[in-house]
Amino acid sequence: MPTDETLPALPALTVRRLRDRQQTDPEALRQVLAEGFVAHVGLVRDGFPIVLPFLYGVGDLGAGPVLLLHGSTGGGLFLDAGAAGVPVSATITHLDGIVFASSTFDSSANYRSAMIAGRATVVPTEQRADALRQVSDHLMPGRRAEVRETTAKEVRQTQVLQLPLDAASVKVRAAGVGESPDDGEDRTVWAGVLPVALRAGAPVPGALAAAAATPVDDAVVALAARLAAAADGREARLAAAM
Amino acid sequence: MPTDETLPALPALTVRRLRDRQQTDPEALRQVLAEGFVAHVGLVRDGFPIVLPFLYGVGDLGAGPVLLLHGSTGGGLFLDAGAAGVPVSATITHLDGIVFASSTFDSSANYRSAMIAGRATVVPTEQRADALRQVSDHLMPGRRAEVRETTAKEVRQTQVLQLPLDAASVKVRAAGVGESPDDGEDRTVWAGVLPVALRAGAPVPGALAAAAATPVDDAVVALAARLAAAADGREARLAAAM
Repeated sequence: MPTDETLPALPALTVRRLRDRQQTDPEALRQVLAEGFVAHVGLVRDGFPIVLPFLYGVGDLGAGPVLLLHGSTGGGLFLDAGAAGVPVSATITHLDGIVFASSTFDSSANYRSAMIAGRATVVPTEQRADALRQVSDHLMPGRRAEVRETTAKEVRQTQVLQLPLDAASVKVRAAGVGESPDDGEDRTVWAGVLPVALRAGAPVPGALAAAAATPVDDAVVALAARLAAAADGREARLAAAM
Repeated sequence: MPTDETLPALPALTVRRLRDRQQTDPEALRQVLAEGFVAHVGLVRDGFPIVLPFLYGVGDLGAGPVLLLHGSTGGGLFLDAGAAGVPVSATITHLDGIVFASSTFDSSANYRSAMIAGRATVVPTEQRADALRQVSDHLMPGRRAEVRETTAKEVRQTQVLQLPLDAASVKVRAAGVGESPDDGEDRTVWAGVLPVALRAGAPVPGALAAAAATPVDDAVVALAARLAAAADGREARLAAAM
């Protein structure tokens, strides 16, 4: 099984500006992917670039780590993909903060973003159930133990695309506001970072669960807690670094 | 000035599946764009699709509503754009909830997504300062009144791309869990929606603001409050609809 110790950059992935924000550590890619739900997938259709959001998972079907894109058999990208695969880039971005500098010019955003480029292929039929389990375990960890098995008919109605993770570019800005005592800026202006993060609200039961007073399942509570812990951790690290 | 009462779909934008999730009301597009910060912009480079995140604003430079993409003069997309423009799609997606059905197959996500397709052109020099003001007013409403004016040198160091809003596709899922009393599913499983939203944490001052005990500016507080109000409103509407 081929593995990559570093993330080789495709020529087109070379960052032309703010190179110091690019990271090549595979762990950086893993972390960006681990916390995300939606990938923006770009493909060329009739010569025109289009970008579609997909729920995704990270998994491995035996040939190395892959991004797994979840869809229906009727979905456009899946028709395009065919057996040979379709060139795509999949980008996952977390917005972590709005950087309020003492000027709009120096204002910015904290973020983590990963772009994976490659050829997306349809997961073979015999691996599809496994791929769906991996997508579910990424999006809703622990949920499979709480619900029935997916049926063979359901597996047939679903498609999964796989995209190898071996050509990726990760960019991160996780810093405070750029400033120095002699930069001439107005010190009566507050300059700092407003952290932002995806956080969960209170679970809203469907009508049947509400009528039966079914307790909220552990996987739901755990996902909310995971989002809160990740957001709280980033905010604490940012505050400690300022 | 040409205006569009409806959002004409480019041929490539036709939704092939889940058509009931597509909306053609211009107000739906406006709402998706109003709440976002990051657009995922797809373009074709050397025949390959790439997808890059951009901070954006929504504005109007005199020829109708446009998406304004903020960058530096060194940025790759801006080199590609030239005077004639570059074909792009810009997609903005809000993840609003994880839908925990009583099976993984019926599980889903609530989201609002808009894809705008067209030719992005560089904002002419004489309109650039105006475009930057509109981007700032989108990302950080009220901030310009709190900080100094952008200098001519700063304007020269920045680039803005504009993309007309007249070819767009909006897709929304804002619903509860799909279920019916006779669907045969296990009622001991909790089924419902875990709402998620981008929310702000406590503002983190930079070292100079902290040392001077500068009070947090209104624009920072207002942005945090706006995110909370939008998230709370969506959660309340979802709970009321269940």
